[in-house]
Amino acid sequence: MSELFGRAEYDARLRRTRERMSAQGLDALVVVEPANLYYLTGYDAWSFYTPQALVVPLEGELLLFTRAIDAPGALMTTSLAAEQVIGFPDDYVQQPGRHPFDVLAAELSERVRPGARIGLESDAYYFSSRADQALRFGLSGVTFVDSGELVNWVRVVKSAAELEAMRRAARIVERVMATAIDAVDAGIRQCDAAAEIMRAQARGTEEWGGDYPAIVPMMPSGPGTRTAHLTWSDAPFRQGEATVIELAAAHRHYHCPMARTVFLGTPPAKLRRTSEAVMEGLEAALDTVKPGVRCEEVEAAWRRTIARHGLEKPSRIGYSVGIGYPPDWGEHTLSLRPGDRTELAPGMTFHLMLGMWLDEIGLELSEVVQVTDSGAECLARFPRELAVKR
Amino acid sequence: MSELFGRAEYDARLRRTRERMSAQGLDALVVVEPANLYYLTGYDAWSFYTPQALVVPLEGELLLFTRAIDAPGALMTTSLAAEQVIGFPDDYVQQPGRHPFDVLAAELSERVRPGARIGLESDAYYFSSRADQALRFGLSGVTFVDSGELVNWVRVVKSAAELEAMRRAARIVERVMATAIDAVDAGIRQCDAAAEIMRAQARGTEEWGGDYPAIVPMMPSGPGTRTAHLTWSDAPFRQGEATVIELAAAHRHYHCPMARTVFLGTPPAKLRRTSEAVMEGLEAALDTVKPGVRCEEVEAAWRRTIARHGLEKPSRIGYSVGIGYPPDWGEHTLSLRPGDRTELAPGMTFHLMLGMWLDEIGLELSEVVQVTDSGAECLARFPRELAVKR
Repeated sequence: MSELFGRAEYDARLRRTRERMSAQGLDALVVVEPANLYYLTGYDAWSFYTPQALVVPLEGELLLFTRAIDAPGALMTTSLAAEQVIGFPDDYVQQPGRHPFDVLAAELSERVRPGARIGLESDAYYFSSRADQALRFGLSGVTFVDSGELVNWVRVVKSAAELEAMRRAARIVERVMATAIDAVDAGIRQCDAAAEIMRAQARGTEEWGGDYPAIVPMMPSGPGTRTAHLTWSDAPFRQGEATVIELAAAHRHYHCPMARTVFLGTPPAKLRRTSEAVMEGLEAALDTVKPGVRCEEVEAAWRRTIARHGLEKPSRIGYSVGIGYPPDWGEHTLSLRPGDRTELAPGMTFHLMLGMWLDEIGLELSEVVQVTDSGAECLARFPRELAVKR
Repeated sequence: MSELFGRAEYDARLRRTRERMSAQGLDALVVVEPANLYYLTGYDAWSFYTPQALVVPLEGELLLFTRAIDAPGALMTTSLAAEQVIGFPDDYVQQPGRHPFDVLAAELSERVRPGARIGLESDAYYFSSRADQALRFGLSGVTFVDSGELVNWVRVVKSAAELEAMRRAARIVERVMATAIDAVDAGIRQCDAAAEIMRAQARGTEEWGGDYPAIVPMMPSGPGTRTAHLTWSDAPFRQGEATVIELAAAHRHYHCPMARTVFLGTPPAKLRRTSEAVMEGLEAALDTVKPGVRCEEVEAAWRRTIARHGLEKPSRIGYSVGIGYPPDWGEHTLSLRPGDRTELAPGMTFHLMLGMWLDEIGLELSEVVQVTDSGAECLARFPRELAVKR
């Protein structure tokens, strides 16, 4: 457990989770999402490639269920007592005809009362359909409920300690993006630039080390900039082409993502104009942010602004961000898009991610924004202009 | 699509997949696992954090379903035609009350005949319970079947081109492990060693760049060596302590993992003895490997050998390895453990991973093994001894 987050912090997180459970009439919650496990207990290991879960009863002790060989790591990274950690036998790992959640179901059947309502994170990345079936088959006489992103919604407002972790990540990401823009150059292999970026991500600063971000550096280049989410190859960057760099730094698994665009040579007028319009749209969106404003209003301000430049963007322009484990640093709660009527509140943090994927070329620009008592604060400081290297 | 893998390679992969589908009586297969999508089409992007699928009908054209903003990337990295790629609208992304597979279900209902049997990868990482429900709710009049790890089993025997990709990864991992052992030293922050490791992973060699491995470097240190799967912190390595380094290099997403153990100072006699026993057990296991031998026989040879040294290991000692995307480089098919009666065949590749997590200290040693016509070949060459740095 990190020194940033003391007992009181974890108690508050659990209390707020149980308040939501109570409001949903849940007797217990089966938490699978690694970021939610980390949030509630501090459990931190790359063990999520085999099934694991935290059982949160409405009252009583937490129970962490993981592979037997990972149980010592659970005891080392959390303050759970030995009897709160159950390791399943290794012959349940990736074995046809059985599933680790057969064991979890048996454990739960001794712990929950008949008729209990049990919440399941039905759309969590590591909660497969077969895991769901194993639980339902092995635990009868209870009611399973899709509890949605219950813990994710608890995470949406950050504490002072969480904001401190994110500010540390912001200091790291400023260095990482500077390294990235320096590394992207004509004739340099994409993989060699990725190498320098990942080195900077882990080094962090002299004071604070970097964790692995939930997503590797994405760096579509040339024709690749027409789309999002391409990573790198061993082909060289080429003069006369754009490269979009979307990455994050993480500290104690708290993320500060950032996207910028580099052009090698003289950028086409269209890219330059788009960059100007996007910076103007970003300012318009930021000017809108304050407590009580709805997510869709922030998007609307952006939309109106870029429309004046003849641009439109059909995809969302942001999402809540904080703790992340692969494959996503987004929190799967609020999104900045039409129809999202979530009201902004102080302590919320979102990644305002303006990706413009045009017909022949693309551009990205982003900021991580903290909602303050009166407006918005961008956590990282880094020039927003298209980075031009001649 | 990489130059390593031509049209004939992809055709053969699809043919072998359809042979298995036919044997299971399937009319179509919904492939979700990113490694399986890559294997069958070459599709390569960090887009798997939103739902996506490849629909493989028993006859006719493949259909790739992904987020609309990712569709251009699908066209760039595969040889699919535009009409074979369907992008779902962005307002289905992480949105309460709807799921992208609502759209997939609607698309499928126009493409499959009533009564069709459709295979689902029910335990794939990115096939959530809610995704399963969306498909079943939206597509009636068909039968859904858990097709198990159907495509994973097609992947278990590697082609010559795949073995070449893995040999390139082996050349890279030799450099990466040398970098790692060099970087781990008393007083050095763990994150700074991780930084050098990840830099080496991406740089690769002068000829071949490195891809991101499916798992970040794992490096439990000191008391952390009692368990597997811990990553790093910003605490320094300490004199008199062991560090376990488990990592991989990847080329074109083909992996060569490797585990070694470093000790800073004079290793305790128990660790030294364990290291000797594990090396002997590794040799015994390797001596057993040849076509026709069953997986459990390899494990038995290891087990007998270490038992003579008073050691036992309750967890499996290996698994099939090849293409990997986060969170796992294992293929979820054969495992080296009691009860796995899979017969080894030429072209199979497995990670023989000997992790000994003792009461106070741990040790890991591994090799990636290719089954040849007559025996075993270790893909990477790297000293197996406990690395002692005084």
